Amino acid sequence: MSAVYNKVALIGLGLIAGSIALAARESGAAGRISGTARTAKTRSAARDLQLCDEIVDNAAAAVRNADLVILCVPVGAMGKVMSEIKPHLKPGAVITDVGSVKQEVIAEVSPHLPDHVHFIPGHPLAGTEQSGPYSGFAGLFSNRWWLLTPLPDTDPEELSRLRRFIRALGANVEDMEPAHHDTVLAVTSHTPHLIAYTMVGVADHLKRVTESEVIKYSAAGFRDFTRIAASDPTMWRDVFLNNKDAVLDILGRFTEELFVLQRAIRMGDGDHLHEYFTRTRAIRRGIIEAGQDTDAPDFGRSAQPGGKRLD
Amino acid sequence: MSAVYNKVALIGLGLIAGSIALAARESGAAGRISGTARTAKTRSAARDLQLCDEIVDNAAAAVRNADLVILCVPVGAMGKVMSEIKPHLKPGAVITDVGSVKQEVIAEVSPHLPDHVHFIPGHPLAGTEQSGPYSGFAGLFSNRWWLLTPLPDTDPEELSRLRRFIRALGANVEDMEPAHHDTVLAVTSHTPHLIAYTMVGVADHLKRVTESEVIKYSAAGFRDFTRIAASDPTMWRDVFLNNKDAVLDILGRFTEELFVLQRAIRMGDGDHLHEYFTRTRAIRRGIIEAGQDTDAPDFGRSAQPGGKRLD
Repeated sequence: MSAVYNKVALIGLGLIAGSIALAARESGAAGRISGTARTAKTRSAARDLQLCDEIVDNAAAAVRNADLVILCVPVGAMGKVMSEIKPHLKPGAVITDVGSVKQEVIAEVSPHLPDHVHFIPGHPLAGTEQSGPYSGFAGLFSNRWWLLTPLPDTDPEELSRLRRFIRALGANVEDMEPAHHDTVLAVTSHTPHLIAYTMVGVADHLKRVTESEVIKYSAAGFRDFTRIAASDPTMWRDVFLNNKDAVLDILGRFTEELFVLQRAIRMGDGDHLHEYFTRTRAIRRGIIEAGQDTDAPDFGRSAQPGGKRLD
Repeated sequence: MSAVYNKVALIGLGLIAGSIALAARESGAAGRISGTARTAKTRSAARDLQLCDEIVDNAAAAVRNADLVILCVPVGAMGKVMSEIKPHLKPGAVITDVGSVKQEVIAEVSPHLPDHVHFIPGHPLAGTEQSGPYSGFAGLFSNRWWLLTPLPDTDPEELSRLRRFIRALGANVEDMEPAHHDTVLAVTSHTPHLIAYTMVGVADHLKRVTESEVIKYSAAGFRDFTRIAASDPTMWRDVFLNNKDAVLDILGRFTEELFVLQRAIRMGDGDHLHEYFTRTRAIRRGIIEAGQDTDAPDFGRSAQPGGKRLD
């Protein structure tokens, strides 16, 4: 395809930026990619990997003459990066971000926006439990959702151009209102992550069960929690601090619900438990039907007839 | 190999029994397999699948002349099944079970044991979120742990013979004290399952976020919870009712821990969150090193370079 943007600048070079660079190169959606990262170590790794056409030492140099700037830093660093690049942005440039929280990012970034650029916040619902420049791969966004939360004054032409670029990376694009985004993600991502972190933490300092036992017998369910809980600590700290209200609200509901099940266990109310567990099965079926997972068994991992390990 | 037991009887024909039947046939560990299930529908499905050499209508007929009897029914049904088969057991037969809870199963089964048989309780740490006779596959136990909790008077020769049979199915065998088993499993399996069920339940009745949104955007973390929460409701009801004390203890610790993290979010204590999330990463690394998972990225599912879906 012909390039959607002549020059794309990536600020931050972790899993998401690395995957954007690889997918953009594969699809030809970017004419030229410039990248930068805060630490010399990450920049050097990105150079070794030849992730971008050029790796520069700071964000100001990266955004020079860029038609699209993608902020790929933790949510808490977005405002600072924006203030650094502000004087160096090309008139007419599009700025987007990949933060997991949208209202706070909009509040942090907006004060630093020059009049002559277009800010279109975004969030790709893709990732793995790994991080850093070596973790990126071109297929990360394939058939995943990439949400955009355009602002009331967003230019429709620039919005559809950004959509074209994202589709070229393999993702499906959808628009969402920023506050609604933050609530939906608190349910589908942020609270599940906090819960997984907590359960792994409980196992960690339980003296009656040694750490080696927890690890050895993890396949019984716990392993899926550790995968979630292995995600990047800085990214997740920033998510919780910046989507505080929605997360605290969902956590409150979760605790209420957990207490009701806990009471059913204490009282021996088997009917309540059975009815509850039957209801949650239906949601799983919905996810398989929506194509966001398959019904291939996954708990055992060596889950195919014949025992071939698929991961 | 030559058969470890001439005749094996499977009581209950769900995921575990079906997988035992297929793995035993593949390895030749059982001379002949007889199976039964409570419902005519399951028996008929097992006949269609030719899961066993014979499918009979009741447990009494299945255990006749069997050298090994494996109780593959939910934990809450073990005592009843044992009382039914008691008069029909062959002298010298070995009885084992696959229940996820051991102390209660021992308490329920023991009163019905004739003097002339050997009871060696067990628990294979393998399974998927699926259930029923169609869900079994021969590779389910491959490289998984199968815990045995022998009683003080267990015959060492019968114990080593049962171990040989289990290893022939592909599993690694380990002995554990029943009470310790129930604590370890409360941490690594039972409490994580309850938490996953709870989180899926919260998402289910949240009015501000529609069910279709929860399903559509599940790849952001929630999907792993729904897989866990799709497990068999009857089996899990019985697990919680029969491992009540250990589960309530771990749940109490979990809630305490969750409140500390919740307070850190409310207070904006980023250092606490970051330090906590860094610690949980180490456990994940331990699990990968122990060979109970790989570090292939899994969140995105289409997680291999090139975007090939592996599940």
